[in-house]
Amino acid sequence: MNNFVFQNLTKLIFGKGQIAKLSEELPKGKKIMVTFGGGSVKNNGVYDQVVAALEGFDFVEFWGIEPNPKVETLRKAVEQCKREGVEFLLAVGGGSTLDGTKLIAAAAKIEADAWELVCNPKLYEGTLPFASVMTLPATGSEMNRGAVISNLATGEKYSFYNTYPVFSILDPEATFSLPKFQIACGLADTFVHVMEQYLTITDCSPLMDRWAEGVVQTIVEVAPKALAEQKEYDAMATFMLSATMGLNGFVAMGVPQDWATHMIGHEITALTGTTHGQTLVIVLPGVMNALREQKGGKIVQFGERVWGISEGSKDERIDKTIEATEQFFRSLGLATRLSELSIGEDVVSEIVNRFSERGTLLGENKNIDYRLVEEILRQRM
Amino acid sequence: MNNFVFQNLTKLIFGKGQIAKLSEELPKGKKIMVTFGGGSVKNNGVYDQVVAALEGFDFVEFWGIEPNPKVETLRKAVEQCKREGVEFLLAVGGGSTLDGTKLIAAAAKIEADAWELVCNPKLYEGTLPFASVMTLPATGSEMNRGAVISNLATGEKYSFYNTYPVFSILDPEATFSLPKFQIACGLADTFVHVMEQYLTITDCSPLMDRWAEGVVQTIVEVAPKALAEQKEYDAMATFMLSATMGLNGFVAMGVPQDWATHMIGHEITALTGTTHGQTLVIVLPGVMNALREQKGGKIVQFGERVWGISEGSKDERIDKTIEATEQFFRSLGLATRLSELSIGEDVVSEIVNRFSERGTLLGENKNIDYRLVEEILRQRM
Repeated sequence: MNNFVFQNLTKLIFGKGQIAKLSEELPKGKKIMVTFGGGSVKNNGVYDQVVAALEGFDFVEFWGIEPNPKVETLRKAVEQCKREGVEFLLAVGGGSTLDGTKLIAAAAKIEADAWELVCNPKLYEGTLPFASVMTLPATGSEMNRGAVISNLATGEKYSFYNTYPVFSILDPEATFSLPKFQIACGLADTFVHVMEQYLTITDCSPLMDRWAEGVVQTIVEVAPKALAEQKEYDAMATFMLSATMGLNGFVAMGVPQDWATHMIGHEITALTGTTHGQTLVIVLPGVMNALREQKGGKIVQFGERVWGISEGSKDERIDKTIEATEQFFRSLGLATRLSELSIGEDVVSEIVNRFSERGTLLGENKNIDYRLVEEILRQRM
Repeated sequence: MNNFVFQNLTKLIFGKGQIAKLSEELPKGKKIMVTFGGGSVKNNGVYDQVVAALEGFDFVEFWGIEPNPKVETLRKAVEQCKREGVEFLLAVGGGSTLDGTKLIAAAAKIEADAWELVCNPKLYEGTLPFASVMTLPATGSEMNRGAVISNLATGEKYSFYNTYPVFSILDPEATFSLPKFQIACGLADTFVHVMEQYLTITDCSPLMDRWAEGVVQTIVEVAPKALAEQKEYDAMATFMLSATMGLNGFVAMGVPQDWATHMIGHEITALTGTTHGQTLVIVLPGVMNALREQKGGKIVQFGERVWGISEGSKDERIDKTIEATEQFFRSLGLATRLSELSIGEDVVSEIVNRFSERGTLLGENKNIDYRLVEEILRQRM
């Protein structure tokens, strides 16, 4: 096991009717900005619950943080925060709304432009405190420090790190009206988040292995229910809790991490606008296959414990495990090949060029260069 | 899934050589009291590492917090804290040292006696901040709010709740010289902590079930190594991490909890001085058997997922699961019957009397009264 430091400060407030607790959790007498996405919270009752809980608070609303939040949009909120003296931010929506809010909260503290802050973490000078009401289980943003921010002008998409949300309120009923495609992508995102922290070496931390496998097993079990009977509270609660626990550091203690699938997936999204979770399920089987030597032991363990694959040679078990993984993604109704989304040669070439120019090396061993990225993507055409 | 609120503030600093980080983590310019148990830290090198890291800090030492920490001892530390203006406490030792320190830290803030505070949580007026260097994996005290305090004069043993440790440093090498009996009791304690949060109803939180089973599976796998090759770093690290994760709220989100085994075990310790973990493995099989109707579904799930028991009628599977659990405890070298420790009729009668007088009702359904306690204990003679 590797040495590690773990601390997660977020207060997680989970369950039916919990949005009303905003009135207890928000700071009294502070100027609050409430940030939103495109307006779905007006249809599922969340907006009304939030506004009711905010009675007596001094708040402004900022609307329009889009999926894969764009710095162009966020700059407007930063400007408004500075102009109106906002002291606390509350994101109401999915991971994108909260991700964008994490950047707004930090950029409001500095003179420099928000995109400069994304590109240069040294500009960070603290943050306005922020919290969330999360309506879409997927990113885990509600209980971690990370955000992913896009730049429309340059077609780039990068990670940004702030501190933890002060609190996050998760009411599974807020997910009842989500489109099925969003549910599918959220299930896929959670699955792959855990794989990034798990699919490296064996015997590093047996407990973290069990917990990572536990999240994936739970996602596999709950997926058909979450997709078929979306208003079944317990299924959506289980999905929502799994998404949060999949990326809050709880399964990452003392183990190496990969994240190659995410880095490649981010480029697909940056160039084509494809939904994040959808890109991941295309890329992951390619990473598993291309790294089958290095990750073989863990792939076999995964296949045995999650898919029940215990027969055959090591190579056969790896093949079966990759196939079972891809089949699961297909069972969510997602594409697992680039061609299914009409993503072609030109996009692959551009992604390979980008990794080549930047000299980026991916994966837990930093041995995935642009050539291996090309091999991975060509497998997934 | 039940509604819940989760927050755990402790910074966990885990691994080889991490005790040196005390110099970064402790507050500069504050008067610190370092609390210790009986002196084993002088033999395993921990004391020397702590003192080296504390160079330049203003600190006093308080020695002699015993296993099942006694309020009679803790009062002396409280008095010294008040007299010398102590502002921060650092516990160095096992769970008992830290448990005692949690009470010292809170009692130092009030006029009332420390035992009054244990008996009446309303007297709590905040706490001196405290942290730990943990040398014995067992109680989980390093990452939770709880403590268990004994009163020598009255033969009582009760829980007390403070806030979270500011940080806890866990170096698995500190466990290399622990007596085997302490290792066995720590493994048992971790196992039973998880069972108290798990062995209730099925289908409440599939993810928490997986995580609870994951801790128990890990303990079962690592136990033979931890007992045989106690200086194998990875085995002791896995045991240590499991003990912390078994009682820090991570496996308790949205699920009911039992704790009957602990409540009964505490009485055995209070009356006979038997080590905590040892009492738990005697009581748990009795609770499982006496509550076999109510807990049957979960016992069967536990038997199947942890012990691989999948054949037979429900009753047969329950019997086999209880037997496998008891066998595991015996494999640790622990007694699983009261008579093995020469605990007889008189102690059982006194425990039953106490529960009868107090009118205490135990378990997730508060349906274990003194009569059921008697049935449980008689089974375990």
